[in-house]
Amino acid sequence: VIEREGWKVGGIAKGAGMLAPGLATMLVVLTTDAILDVQRARAALRDATRVTFDRTDSDGCMSTNDTVLLLASGASGVAPGPDEFELALTEACAILARALIADAEGASHDISITVTNATTEEAAEAVARAVARSNLFKAAIFGNDPNWGRIVSAVGTVPVSIAPFDPLHLDVSVNGIEVCRALGVGEDRSLVDLTPREVTVVIDLHAGVAAATIWTNDLTHDYVHENSAYSS
Amino acid sequence: VIEREGWKVGGIAKGAGMLAPGLATMLVVLTTDAILDVQRARAALRDATRVTFDRTDSDGCMSTNDTVLLLASGASGVAPGPDEFELALTEACAILARALIADAEGASHDISITVTNATTEEAAEAVARAVARSNLFKAAIFGNDPNWGRIVSAVGTVPVSIAPFDPLHLDVSVNGIEVCRALGVGEDRSLVDLTPREVTVVIDLHAGVAAATIWTNDLTHDYVHENSAYSS
Repeated sequence: VIEREGWKVGGIAKGAGMLAPGLATMLVVLTTDAILDVQRARAALRDATRVTFDRTDSDGCMSTNDTVLLLASGASGVAPGPDEFELALTEACAILARALIADAEGASHDISITVTNATTEEAAEAVARAVARSNLFKAAIFGNDPNWGRIVSAVGTVPVSIAPFDPLHLDVSVNGIEVCRALGVGEDRSLVDLTPREVTVVIDLHAGVAAATIWTNDLTHDYVHENSAYSS
Repeated sequence: VIEREGWKVGGIAKGAGMLAPGLATMLVVLTTDAILDVQRARAALRDATRVTFDRTDSDGCMSTNDTVLLLASGASGVAPGPDEFELALTEACAILARALIADAEGASHDISITVTNATTEEAAEAVARAVARSNLFKAAIFGNDPNWGRIVSAVGTVPVSIAPFDPLHLDVSVNGIEVCRALGVGEDRSLVDLTPREVTVVIDLHAGVAAATIWTNDLTHDYVHENSAYSS
């Protein structure tokens, strides 16, 4: 629950994994007692999901039936000021989206991939998503290996028409250690501690001022087990 | 070696997996003693690789440094007739491409995914590649599960602008058993035998006359092990 002066936003979410055949894959219900008209509620929900649920990518496999609902009762009697509700709703969605990823099938690391200084937000998102979908990168994180070569090779698969940048000016840091600096050797990769569950990857494209973050998880033996050992 | 009247095409290929850091990922040398000029050799090689090496996709992770070379000596003294050399070269490339996939990291099944009756060859390729990149589908095949739901949900991720088709007219067969017929229940999935290493998936879009095949492999514990247990 996100609390503001006189009104609140609540939320509940279910399942990144296919919990049972026939049930929806992701089901999210958000509630608020703020006063909202339909247009504001719709726009706020679309904007909030665009940068939260739409930026989670556990295994690149699009879900078949996801639902996000926002219910607004107006019971607080308070109409939030400009952007106030939108920010609170985005915060609630981000908390739920991270919780879904943390609960993903077989995951042992929760990974955020942030691309900074891209030409556009779309470029930043495309680069971050390419890394999030690299099985090689995700298996390396499972093995506690800060393998920046696998990050950079995934970055290089994004067409230059979508994300222009100079490959000679690319910095990569993993959990705060800049392991790749302008494609040369940065700090000692043995300094990177990947034993915590949370992993933070930051990729600086040095091409603009836009940024985006994708949340994903690692590729583990448990993922393979959970998705091969039963029939659905 | 592909033998024709008076001339031959030979080939050798190395490595779908990263055999050792610093070495090229895929290295292919093709040889022929046929008489070819440079234009014909270039065009034949481009056309042959487009439908062979370019249609292998082990884990969706683009290789960083692949090489395919064609060396033509003319020593046979024979100039192959129209299309003769091109067909033989494509056959040689297809054999090598399948051998690379069969040798991929940790694979226990070699999978061909053929999309038929698409509007264009590009549409067929895009649909086949979407299935080839689905970790959920690839883990199911590892588990000997002919999970057509995972195939259909991967097909559904391809934008309609790239591959238009009617979702209500979609047939899927796995190793010759049509498990999904027009999205209804087809033949009994327990009839599908996935114990052989070779797996053949055919997806009929009923939208046109074009077709394409992508070769891939399954997602296994050995893949995760080989890509997490060492640092590169």
